[in-house]
Parts: sequence; structure tokens; C-alpha cells
Amino acid sequence: MGSAGEVSAAEILAPVRAEMEAVERRLRAEVEQADPRLAPLLADASLLRGKGLRPGLVFLVARATGALRPDHITLASALEMIHNATLIHDDILDDATARRNQMTLNLKYNNEMAVLIGDYIFARAFVLAHSMDSADAVAQIGRMATAICRGEIKQVLRRFDADLDEAAYFELIAEKTGSLYEAAGELGARLAGAAADTIRTCAEYGAAIGVAFQIVDDCLDLVGQEAVMGKTLATDLDKGKLTLPVIRYLGAASPEVRRELMELIGSAAVSRGDKRARFVGRLRDSGAIDYAYARAVQETERAKGLLAALAPSPARTSLEQLADFVVRRQC
Amino acid sequence: MGSAGEVSAAEILAPVRAEMEAVERRLRAEVEQADPRLAPLLADASLLRGKGLRPGLVFLVARATGALRPDHITLASALEMIHNATLIHDDILDDATARRNQMTLNLKYNNEMAVLIGDYIFARAFVLAHSMDSADAVAQIGRMATAICRGEIKQVLRRFDADLDEAAYFELIAEKTGSLYEAAGELGARLAGAAADTIRTCAEYGAAIGVAFQIVDDCLDLVGQEAVMGKTLATDLDKGKLTLPVIRYLGAASPEVRRELMELIGSAAVSRGDKRARFVGRLRDSGAIDYAYARAVQETERAKGLLAALAPSPARTSLEQLADFVVRRQC
Repeated sequence: MGSAGEVSAAEILAPVRAEMEAVERRLRAEVEQADPRLAPLLADASLLRGKGLRPGLVFLVARATGALRPDHITLASALEMIHNATLIHDDILDDATARRNQMTLNLKYNNEMAVLIGDYIFARAFVLAHSMDSADAVAQIGRMATAICRGEIKQVLRRFDADLDEAAYFELIAEKTGSLYEAAGELGARLAGAAADTIRTCAEYGAAIGVAFQIVDDCLDLVGQEAVMGKTLATDLDKGKLTLPVIRYLGAASPEVRRELMELIGSAAVSRGDKRARFVGRLRDSGAIDYAYARAVQETERAKGLLAALAPSPARTSLEQLADFVVRRQC
Repeated sequence: MGSAGEVSAAEILAPVRAEMEAVERRLRAEVEQADPRLAPLLADASLLRGKGLRPGLVFLVARATGALRPDHITLASALEMIHNATLIHDDILDDATARRNQMTLNLKYNNEMAVLIGDYIFARAFVLAHSMDSADAVAQIGRMATAICRGEIKQVLRRFDADLDEAAYFELIAEKTGSLYEAAGELGARLAGAAADTIRTCAEYGAAIGVAFQIVDDCLDLVGQEAVMGKTLATDLDKGKLTLPVIRYLGAASPEVRRELMELIGSAAVSRGDKRARFVGRLRDSGAIDYAYARAVQETERAKGLLAALAPSPARTSLEQLADFVVRRQC
């Protein structure tokens, strides 16, 4: 992975660079126009430091299916803010200390402040969304936010649960991660004036790459490098979140090995780094990591196949590249 | 306080009992129609166990100023859900263990789950709000939610801050508590078809009783009884939240006493019950508690004065009684 001929995120997003910059300005304005006491906290929330895949998806879909309108900037900004709010709350759940090469808010301040800043950004995202012309779009963002929380709650409910199978894992990540990409695709196309079947195609494309993104994220939590990812890793096993490679491995293991590994996952005496170290060789050797990547590729290949329904365009090419990027990314 | 001739909450809300029951049905449906894995968690969120002052305000204002419409039920339900979501997150911040005579979600499950259930209810409230006919109303709920978070963040920022003065306290509680009552009054009147100046009156009425409610809440945290209140008390001093009686007392104290008391508040070695016990006599004897109650009464008297602009009606009478109730309530 990672050969010289591969396309960078910046190159993929080149056709919509002006719109990406408009999102950046909008998010910067969120910080600058906030109450002076809140502004420094929002600056620390790193709203601007993401890869911008979700806003990029909104704009590329709009370009590929119809007209890019000012409401797309608003939509992309609101989705990015909701994404950020969920990350801030996730970092509390994971006791994470780093995100986007910065201290997490729970570390820099405390859990209470991180709860409230996440809430604030979430509420502001809805205020922003309301400035769009489409009441339907705003309602769908609400349903999407509900789905994200539902997926996250299911994940917490099933921590340390050796019975979590692939079907339940896929349902859960479709809700917690797929739903935002799905909304980006669907609403990007709808606001562009696309036909109903095209809107459906873009929703499915988004959902598929969202699921692939999460599978890869879960693999990187096991095999990625913190310095490259810029965030705390190895939290999943420590928090009892069973992800695809682990589910695959445990599914093929003997009852004794399963029991032994579930005890390791649940042990408070073993550090998260050590848990990961004791798993990762087995996962690699058994092919469980490769299996998870193959399942992610299956999703992105399906996503690319869906794009065949759209007319060829530079934006459609970027969407194809975006699908590949989601799988091969190292951060 | 608490004489036999006083009007109960149920009596005050009698003119809108049918609507209050409709809210209860709507909130029950939120639990019953949720994903089966989430339903038990939502049942534990005690959505139905509040006093219903905020929904009651919506309906009484509507009755007193125009026509009560189905959207009022939706509005009242959405506001009550947002209120509940903020309580759930507050209980995490306060390490509270009891709320509405039930275990808090952070105690029954854990902080992570309480964060997520609060988020879920917040998102669902927006979905519900979107089913209203008025896009403006939904946008205002977003601004209100932002104001609540802003007030809460300021409160956390100023914990253990002996320089927090009355003006900053009032600004903070107007945002964190007044804003929801204000929105209930304003939107209750607007959806009823009231004239612009009547809408403004109801907004101001709501904001004033919201502020009074919070002052009294802060007094009850110091002098109330947990068994009566049904929730964890004495958390404010322990968490360094300086409220009106304490601000009043410290403002009149010598620098030495101030320093001594701020040290007591900040001490990890003294239990929250002991902190309260060591403060409460001084606060009572100095008249600081009475002062805070007098300030609350000042707000509710102003609120009642505003009602003179509305035509006499049973609903207006209930709004007058509601203002008095907010101050004399024991829970």
C-alpha cells in the first residue's frame, strides 16, 4: 500500500477546492463569532483539522450529479460540525488523549467540558443547517444524528460481548459511521437537483464508503501508527469494542482460545498497548486483518460500481478515487 | 412557605391537562418506538417524571394568547426532551447519583452511556421539532440549545472563581436556564398566532421565571432535602459552582474569610455534605439565602406584571400561579 503513483486526498478534492475553502471559512467563523469566553475552547476543538472527506463527498456528488449551490457549503459545514461533535464525545468514551495531533478536549480541559463543547457544536450545527432552503434536508440531518447515536449506544451495550457477530458489527457501523456518509451523498445529490434514482445511488455510494472507512479505521486502531494517525490508538480492545478482525479471529478460534482472549481484553492489569501487541501477531498471521481489508474493498468496489450510473466527469473520477483512498489511507 | 391554601402544580396545569397528557403519550412513544436495544435505556432516562413546568408554560401561554394547536404538543415535547438531555449531561458533570427519585444514568450505566443517551435524546428532539409547521420555530430551538450550552460552558469555566459576581451569575443562568423558558413562552405565543408585542411579553415572562427557577434551584441545592427533591443535592459547592447566596455572602466577607471559604470549597478532603453543612448556617444567618429568594421573587413579580398586558383568562391566572409556584416549590 502507498505507492508513488497513488492519488492524494488533496488531488482527489482538487475539483472542489474552492468549496472546501468556503467550508474552512465557515468553520473559522464559528470560532471567531462565538462568545469570547468560548472562542478559545472552540479553537481547541480542531474543527478545521480534519481530512475533509465528508464535505468533499458532498461537493463531488453535487458536481457529478447537478449544480453546486450555496446550500451545499452550509450542508457540508453542518455535517463536518456534527462529525466533530461526535469525535469529541467519542474521545471521552475512549479516554483518548490525542486527536489530529492535538490534545483531546477531555485531556486539555476535562470530561465535563468535552461533553459541553460537543453539545454546543452539535446545537450550532443545527442552527447552521436551518439556514438552508430545504426543511427536508434539515429533518434528515436530525434522523442521521439519531442513527449515529443509536449505533454508538449499541456499541457501548455490546462491549466485551464475545457473541457480537459480523452481522451485528455491520449494522452498528452502518449506523454510527455509514449514516453520515450516506446523508452527505444523498443530500449532496438532492440539493444539486438530481433525479430520485440518482439521489438513491449517491446515498448508497456514501453508505458503502462510510462502512469501508470504519472497517479501515478499526484495522488502523490495531495496526496503525499513532504518529501517522495523529490520534490515540489501541483503544478498541481496551474498551472491549470487538471489531471485524477480532470478530473474525474469535469466530474461528477454539472455545479455550476465545475465553483466554476475552479475559485478556477484559483485564484491567494489561495496558492497551500490551493488549494490542498480544493480539496483532495472531490477527495478522491468521489472515483476519487481510479479511477485514478485503471486506472494506468489497464495499468500495460496490460503491464504485454504483457510480457507473452517473455520467462521466472529473467529479465522478474523484469519487472513484475517494473510494480507493478510504481503504488505502494510513491515517 | 408551603401553607395549606397554596395551589399545587397539578391545579395550576389543570386548564391544559389534556395537552399535558398528550405530551406524556408523545414521550412514551419515543421510548416504545425506539430500537428494542435502546428502549430500556430510554425508559431509565425518566422522560416522563418531570414536573412538566416547561410544557405547561407552552400550553398556558398558547391558551392565554390565542389558539392551542397540535404543533404546541410537538413543541412542548421537543423542549421537554432537550431539557431532559441537558439534565442527563448535567448529572455526569455533577457526579449526581439520583434524579427524580431514580438512579441517574451515569450511576446505573456509566458516564459514556449517559453522554450517548443525552445525545440521542437531543437529536430526537430535533427530529420531533422538524415535524412542526414552522421552520422559524425549529431554528429558534437550535439557537436556544446553543444558549443553554453556552451558559453551561461559562459555568464550568468559572468554577472555583471567587471573582464571579452577580452580573456574571445572572448572565450565566439566563443562558443556561432562562433561555428554555423564554423559548417556551415566545414560541407558545407565536404558534398560537399572537401579535408581535404579545409574543415579546411571553418571551420576557418566560425568561424571568426561568431565572427565578434557577435561583431557587441553587438555593435548594444548599437548603433543600434530597428525599423531597428526589435528586442529589449539595453538588454546587463541591463542584465549585458559586451560586447567588454564596456570591452574596463572599461579597460581604473579609478577605480572610473569603480565602478560608474558597479553600473549603476547593478541598478534596471534605465531603460535599460537610461543605454544605459548614456553609449553610452562615448563609442563613447572614441573610444571603433570604436575599437570593428575594431576588427570585423580584423576577417572578416582574413576570406577573408583564401578564397584565394579556386579557384575563383562566390560563393567565395559571401563569400568575406558576410564577409563584416556581419560588415556593420545595422540589
